[in-house]
Amino acid sequence: MEKILVFGHKNPDTDTITSAIAYAYLKNEIGVVAEPVRLGEINGETQYVLEHFNVEAPRLIEKAGDEVDKVILVDHNERQQSVNDIEDVRIMEVIDHHRISNFETSEPVYFRAEPVGCTATILKKLYKENNVAIPKGMAGLMLSAIISDSLLFKSPTCTEEDIQAARELAELAEVDVEEYGLAMLKAGADLSEKTIAQLISLDSKVFEMGDHRVEIAQVNAIDPADVLSLQQDIEGMLDLVIAEKKLSVFILAVTDILNSNSTIIVRGAQSSAVEKAYNLSLENNTALLEGVVSRKKQIVPILTETFKEL
Amino acid sequence: MEKILVFGHKNPDTDTITSAIAYAYLKNEIGVVAEPVRLGEINGETQYVLEHFNVEAPRLIEKAGDEVDKVILVDHNERQQSVNDIEDVRIMEVIDHHRISNFETSEPVYFRAEPVGCTATILKKLYKENNVAIPKGMAGLMLSAIISDSLLFKSPTCTEEDIQAARELAELAEVDVEEYGLAMLKAGADLSEKTIAQLISLDSKVFEMGDHRVEIAQVNAIDPADVLSLQQDIEGMLDLVIAEKKLSVFILAVTDILNSNSTIIVRGAQSSAVEKAYNLSLENNTALLEGVVSRKKQIVPILTETFKEL
Ligand SMILES: [Mn+2]
Ligand SMILES: [Mn+2]
Repeated sequence: MEKILVFGHKNPDTDTITSAIAYAYLKNEIGVVAEPVRLGEINGETQYVLEHFNVEAPRLIEKAGDEVDKVILVDHNERQQSVNDIEDVRIMEVIDHHRISNFETSEPVYFRAEPVGCTATILKKLYKENNVAIPKGMAGLMLSAIISDSLLFKSPTCTEEDIQAARELAELAEVDVEEYGLAMLKAGADLSEKTIAQLISLDSKVFEMGDHRVEIAQVNAIDPADVLSLQQDIEGMLDLVIAEKKLSVFILAVTDILNSNSTIIVRGAQSSAVEKAYNLSLENNTALLEGVVSRKKQIVPILTETFKEL
Repeated sequence: MEKILVFGHKNPDTDTITSAIAYAYLKNEIGVVAEPVRLGEINGETQYVLEHFNVEAPRLIEKAGDEVDKVILVDHNERQQSVNDIEDVRIMEVIDHHRISNFETSEPVYFRAEPVGCTATILKKLYKENNVAIPKGMAGLMLSAIISDSLLFKSPTCTEEDIQAARELAELAEVDVEEYGLAMLKAGADLSEKTIAQLISLDSKVFEMGDHRVEIAQVNAIDPADVLSLQQDIEGMLDLVIAEKKLSVFILAVTDILNSNSTIIVRGAQSSAVEKAYNLSLENNTALLEGVVSRKKQIVPILTETFKEL
């Protein structure tokens, strides 16, 4: 049987990496030849997760089309967040929990998107629907994805379904959710060895909004001041990326995971769109967004609407 | 609770009408206030189905936004096939089995598309996933949708899942599939009282393909010669629609449901794209496509690819 590659988005986070692994495992169990791969570097949090459950990182790929004809997308559906040669391969399935945009097929596909907090929450259902048992390691990976995407259930994206799934997975994974979760998030929030370039690309996504390209990066921090002290260098780097990718705006959200708010650093010709969206004035290119921790739910929709009206 | 409207595509077929009814019923059973509605006239086949199972036709609407904020799409996802004011309402869910195109949201949605032959086949699974029993009438409607979309299991879009679902639904609906199915298809193929305008709009969809708008209508017939004898008048009407909707091509596929082939009548400035797609020469604007009975699987994908390369 022809192999199918399974992968998440560029600048992979824990949900993207573990969902690729967990869904490829499920596919293998039901007789489909599938291999999980990744489109970028493993971050510190995901590294912690993989080591904790003793699972190997997926292989890094630059292109899919030179090795397979068919792919499965997890944790994303927008083309610009996917593998560079996505136009050259056939998308067989999408399992996702984000908005749907810039996605098109000429033939029917299996497309499963649900407005839950995490791709892993959907995968857990798919294991059940396919009557495949969840082994300890896979349970641990999926649990980690839910903890990561929901910031330990504190994000407004987190649903009852995510919490229930996490509870069941924690039992299978044999971990204490609070203790393990906090250690995991802290491993991800350790920014001490990151360069500026890494900081702004670690968890960054490009969105098409109206006629504009907008990049939104998010950094989770225990102490946001550490990151904000680098503002001048960060802005220089943002400007380089803006010029290179022809962006209208680049937003870096530095998220305080203990106090559940985000300080944004905004650059680009359309920075005023951000002011309009949140009805605020940027001061020194920054603003504190109280209670904002979710790019998907609290940044992308409001910005998309604002850019469409520009 | 705020009401949600559930509807299928314009020029509704049996799957679109019955899926709206069956999904609204399911939603009601799990405590969601949902009403099935329709975007166009009930065709002869669907009329037969509703009378047979004694179910009322959904209410006709022109717009959704003046009565609700939220809608659920079944059996379609492309905006140009949906309600005219689709931009003014929020799409909460999509249940579909077509290609995904021209669909975009700013927030995450429940999007369930599967490459099966019929929306009803997915709905049957959703009843099970939600632990809702399927009453006789709903089983009859869903069975009818599968028979209609699969032309009694003869279409290449028909999967093992559709056949299995139909078998189970037939038991609940207490009908003999072959006998009921043939009577139902014949009711739909009775074209004797149709005007030319009705013939070309009864089951017609507009697609965006590359930079082109293409309309593809399909008419099921027991005796295609009856329809083809009207070719001259049909062409006149096609030309009117092409001018009005700014179409690059209009294809009318007259499908011989007993012999499983289709004769196409093609009009429009880009008719040569159809010749290129099937590697044939139109004669007198027509061609016989042997074995072609599925617009979704045997016409749309190949034309989309061809138009993208133009
Ligand atoms: Mn995710
Ligand atoms: Mn259908």
